[in-house]
Amino acid sequence: MPAVTTDVKPFLDENFLLENRTAEILYHEYAREQPIIDYHNHLPPDEIAADKNFPNLAAIWLQGDHYKWRAMRTLGVPEKYITGSAGDAEKFRKWAETVPFTIRNPLFHWTHLELQRYFGISELLNSKTADGIYEQCNALLSTPAYSTRNLLRKMNVAVVCSTDDPTDNLEHHRLAKADDSFEIQMRPAFRPDKAILIDKEEFTGYLHKLGQAAGVEIHDFDALLQALSNRIRFFDDNGCRLSDHGLEQVYAAPFTHNQVDAALKKRLSGQELSAEESLAFKSAILYELGRLYAEKGWVQQFHLGALRNNSSRMMRRLGPDTGFDSIGDFSQAAALARFLNRLDSEDKLAKTILYNLNPRDNEVMATMIGNFNDGSVRGKMQFGSAWWFLDQKDGMEKQLNALSNMGLLSCFIGMLTDSRSFLSFPRHEYFRRLLCNLIGKDVHNGELPGDVEWLGGIVKDICYRNAEGYFGF
Amino acid sequence: MPAVTTDVKPFLDENFLLENRTAEILYHEYAREQPIIDYHNHLPPDEIAADKNFPNLAAIWLQGDHYKWRAMRTLGVPEKYITGSAGDAEKFRKWAETVPFTIRNPLFHWTHLELQRYFGISELLNSKTADGIYEQCNALLSTPAYSTRNLLRKMNVAVVCSTDDPTDNLEHHRLAKADDSFEIQMRPAFRPDKAILIDKEEFTGYLHKLGQAAGVEIHDFDALLQALSNRIRFFDDNGCRLSDHGLEQVYAAPFTHNQVDAALKKRLSGQELSAEESLAFKSAILYELGRLYAEKGWVQQFHLGALRNNSSRMMRRLGPDTGFDSIGDFSQAAALARFLNRLDSEDKLAKTILYNLNPRDNEVMATMIGNFNDGSVRGKMQFGSAWWFLDQKDGMEKQLNALSNMGLLSCFIGMLTDSRSFLSFPRHEYFRRLLCNLIGKDVHNGELPGDVEWLGGIVKDICYRNAEGYFGF
Amino acid sequence: MPAVTTDVKPFLDENFLLENRTAEILYHEYAREQPIIDYHNHLPPDEIAADKNFPNLAAIWLQGDHYKWRAMRTLGVPEKYITGSAGDAEKFRKWAETVPFTIRNPLFHWTHLELQRYFGISELLNSKTADGIYEQCNALLSTPAYSTRNLLRKMNVAVVCSTDDPTDNLEHHRLAKADDSFEIQMRPAFRPDKAILIDKEEFTGYLHKLGQAAGVEIHDFDALLQALSNRIRFFDDNGCRLSDHGLEQVYAAPFTHNQVDAALKKRLSGQELSAEESLAFKSAILYELGRLYAEKGWVQQFHLGALRNNSSRMMRRLGPDTGFDSIGDFSQAAALARFLNRLDSEDKLAKTILYNLNPRDNEVMATMIGNFNDGSVRGKMQFGSAWWFLDQKDGMEKQLNALSNMGLLSCFIGMLTDSRSFLSFPRHEYFRRLLCNLIGKDVHNGELPGDVEWLGGIVKDICYRNAEGYFGF
Repeated sequence: MPAVTTDVKPFLDENFLLENRTAEILYHEYAREQPIIDYHNHLPPDEIAADKNFPNLAAIWLQGDHYKWRAMRTLGVPEKYITGSAGDAEKFRKWAETVPFTIRNPLFHWTHLELQRYFGISELLNSKTADGIYEQCNALLSTPAYSTRNLLRKMNVAVVCSTDDPTDNLEHHRLAKADDSFEIQMRPAFRPDKAILIDKEEFTGYLHKLGQAAGVEIHDFDALLQALSNRIRFFDDNGCRLSDHGLEQVYAAPFTHNQVDAALKKRLSGQELSAEESLAFKSAILYELGRLYAEKGWVQQFHLGALRNNSSRMMRRLGPDTGFDSIGDFSQAAALARFLNRLDSEDKLAKTILYNLNPRDNEVMATMIGNFNDGSVRGKMQFGSAWWFLDQKDGMEKQLNALSNMGLLSCFIGMLTDSRSFLSFPRHEYFRRLLCNLIGKDVHNGELPGDVEWLGGIVKDICYRNAEGYFGF
Repeated sequence: MPAVTTDVKPFLDENFLLENRTAEILYHEYAREQPIIDYHNHLPPDEIAADKNFPNLAAIWLQGDHYKWRAMRTLGVPEKYITGSAGDAEKFRKWAETVPFTIRNPLFHWTHLELQRYFGISELLNSKTADGIYEQCNALLSTPAYSTRNLLRKMNVAVVCSTDDPTDNLEHHRLAKADDSFEIQMRPAFRPDKAILIDKEEFTGYLHKLGQAAGVEIHDFDALLQALSNRIRFFDDNGCRLSDHGLEQVYAAPFTHNQVDAALKKRLSGQELSAEESLAFKSAILYELGRLYAEKGWVQQFHLGALRNNSSRMMRRLGPDTGFDSIGDFSQAAALARFLNRLDSEDKLAKTILYNLNPRDNEVMATMIGNFNDGSVRGKMQFGSAWWFLDQKDGMEKQLNALSNMGLLSCFIGMLTDSRSFLSFPRHEYFRRLLCNLIGKDVHNGELPGDVEWLGGIVKDICYRNAEGYFGF
Repeated sequence: MPAVTTDVKPFLDENFLLENRTAEILYHEYAREQPIIDYHNHLPPDEIAADKNFPNLAAIWLQGDHYKWRAMRTLGVPEKYITGSAGDAEKFRKWAETVPFTIRNPLFHWTHLELQRYFGISELLNSKTADGIYEQCNALLSTPAYSTRNLLRKMNVAVVCSTDDPTDNLEHHRLAKADDSFEIQMRPAFRPDKAILIDKEEFTGYLHKLGQAAGVEIHDFDALLQALSNRIRFFDDNGCRLSDHGLEQVYAAPFTHNQVDAALKKRLSGQELSAEESLAFKSAILYELGRLYAEKGWVQQFHLGALRNNSSRMMRRLGPDTGFDSIGDFSQAAALARFLNRLDSEDKLAKTILYNLNPRDNEVMATMIGNFNDGSVRGKMQFGSAWWFLDQKDGMEKQLNALSNMGLLSCFIGMLTDSRSFLSFPRHEYFRRLLCNLIGKDVHNGELPGDVEWLGGIVKDICYRNAEGYFGF
């Protein structure tokens, strides 16, 4: 039995992350009960439509989870046990062995929070407990209570927005919507990155596919816009209310229609573009998409600053989104201001959420939104919640503090999972605990008045009601 | 009656922001009594010269306060109630409704600190208390005790330095100085941005005005320098001891006199300059101004990194400084080092204060000053106090910590308001409390010895005595 | 007698920096006893080989310590008392007068920690105690117990790695190794900056010297590589296991052998290179060195982001490394990813440690290493400990937190002094206290389970065992 120090708070108890009584009250009496609007994630719509059950804990927890994969690789676990030929049970055991070495990484908290919330397991996961936990969870996962829809219900989810390619036929969204027994809203989101990144090898092939989906032959820039416009209308008809873009930075160079049209034709003919031609095209298409979103009343999202696919060896072997991305240090401010200003000048600036991956840009984003909040819509411009590598206690607190200090925290639409996993929804709880704790600490220190009812109302707004009003789902 | 948690510190009591006994002693026994040298602000000299009274709380508190305006716009308040046609009382009511939504923003603290310190009001401002507070404050504002000069006296202000255009005739400064009944020093500061930013449309018109003020016809670069030199002498004769520059970044490209002279003539003839020509001109003029300041023994200030006037729609409607600026992400280090080094090499480097708007540059600034502190003057190079968006608890603590860790906090000349408002002086108190609290926490944690007399001396230095010695007012 | 507040922790007592009982246990029962592997420093090998004693405290403590020099210059101490003609005793007195003004700077902690640990002095250093402390320390320094080797033994040092030029004949390393009475490993490290920075005036002279050391006439790029390869083999034969590079940023532009060869020949003929030629050369040489390190199984280190020699006046007077460097704001991410990826693609990526000088790049580095941790070696890619200006409590905590949140703290190889001084080894203690305190705080707050034996094992790993396994000394 190891030495345990006195006066320590139990790990992950009901007051996890809550450091004083005000924080506890705010969380338990105001935040906890709020439904979840998960307005941006990467859940597979087909698995929701089919109300699938997962065969075992490895399948629902490790497959596709590049956060866990990176940790295992760092510890020296061979790829065989990560994405390779080893069986699910073996892979799970390797993950269990890794967990004790993830202390202070969000994986340690996510892991144990998810075991508690979904499976009622408070044991720590490690090599000794691995087999027992695997069996216990697998037994539960085979029951109806652990189907995808019931996992969402268990977490009090009201809305999920997936992330979808413009060419998607949205059949699973339509199936789910048509199913009267499924009360949770599942909506698509429009992510046209492949129509923007003109330098990628797959661009011309993609445009062909997009043209087919849209019923348009894309031979010039106007046709491309027509195709995108058609798909936006189709998405809108199927419940879509927001778009998303994953970019290193926003593009906002000057361009002319002729220049962009020529660039696209050149590219379609199989030639490579100069840096200037490429930038003009990307600037133009982002601007035109922004106009289309505004016309539909959508919300546009920008996830900025990732440096992707850095290991070409592993890219060839495993493809994208497998754990070889990192944080970039691109310039963001000037182009972003030009882009937003051009749309704003023409009264075509949609509600917008800006997410930065490099935390050094928090203050740029927190103040950028203030430039275009014009009194027309409460919290029209949003500084999005801490994302990906920043989706942990420090990262979330820094985002919340920057937003508080340089904008209005009270108008924030709050948390989203951005996850590919059905077990990630306790991240909303994690966010809510941190939020309540920050406010509680301020009260505790005399930096805010102790009027819990008023503060609790703001907490409810940030956890649920602001998003409800903002998206109008 | 809302639930109030136990063990909370009252909001904004006498030990606001002071977390332990050492901090309390340092603040109450050392910091509090120090006079204020507000060496950089944007107070209107005419209103001090005239010892003006304000008609109501909206007039003194909301007019020109773009911090409050941004918050209101974010909350969805229409422009009518911000800068528009609504009456003062209506505008005040909208602001009061906004205040409860500003929690965790410095506005919440400023608002209630200013109500307490100037008006003795400890109530929270919100829609219920709005009318009562408005009436109570308006009654006080009409009394002689609330004239501009008496507001400064109430805060124990010893010196205020306004920010003035080189073309200004400084009549209000001269009037105030000549008035024996006015014991507070009001000094001008020289801000020649309009003579530097050669690409602005108004540049040539401005040079005409500058030439008239200086009695010089500005047809070439030497004449421009002569005009600036004349105005610097005039400002110096009228008590000016410091300059200020608001720039995206410092310019320090190579240039020749001929090149710069040609660029200026080209611009005066109505043509636009290439990026290279413009940069050469700006580099030259900054360098020449730096030499002139050094010769006068002035302090030069650089406020670096703002991205201004981002909404062209609102710029057309309301002009600059109305709440549409944000934090830029410009490169700062290399050019700044080249600029300072060139002046230093020629023994023409004036005492210098560097302010950064992006907090990611704190460490660049905190270490840059060390490159040119040469033992000649205590604290010759200064890393200026947290500014604008950073003028809040987190921002100030980060600046104080970066300065402490990478320089000598003990040599810091401390706080300034940078404000347009006569009610902003409690920001000095706020700064002093944070300073005392940081030192007090270190003592409390065993990271500093508990010798309060010694530490209190350093606190006094930072609050008043360092600035007194540095500026030599 | 100054007022002392109640409830304060004594300054620098046995629980310095340890804020709760878990932290105390982790430090005293797990961290404290670990030997030190100081895998990167700037100790002079000759002084270790000769087992030198220092004549007085000024000689061992002030000479070459540009941290202290900067502080003195900031306070207004004339250069005479810093690097000038004043005697050692006078210089020491000036330093002692400066110390009380260094509060909150790491110098204040280093100073008193070093006085305690090496000399058993708990008095504060200031003008009153200066003479007594000087005499007391000088008396001790003349005894055998204060020879360089005994100073290392006193700190439980197992390995020291110096930093050496490729032209060095490593005679002192060989002498020390041959001395059976010296049980501490002293190993060289290979730092070829002068062979990389082709634009420096001294480059061609340096290549001549390098050619002589390597027995190669360097007339083209292949010959340069041959010379470096020869020296790497020589260093390897003499116990070297790691290299180091001090660069503004990593260079990774495309290049061809012909282009680089032509650039080198042009430079050797006395001409200056274009920016593009220079970049191609630097990119090529870094890449080729990386291959050579991988073939030897070495660890490569990159210290990125310093802006050096900013005061040309003081550079002329005192040379480099005298206190006129600062933190740069260079772009780091994209080139670093390209450089590492190219080596990785060819299976030539050595174990690598990345150190950033600008803390805004912490997250870039913490995630960059994850791109190339491939499961082959535990902790193959390392985010190096906080360095130079960041080697203080805030800087170290931020590095540890970024690494924890975005990687695996448990695989970290921990602290190094990077120092030129024999009295700097308590920095390992400082690091260990901070590490134990961070983990202890998490336990205390319920963010980690209170299993001290398990956590203590991770602490031991980070303090000693990870470095032992990583370097294989």
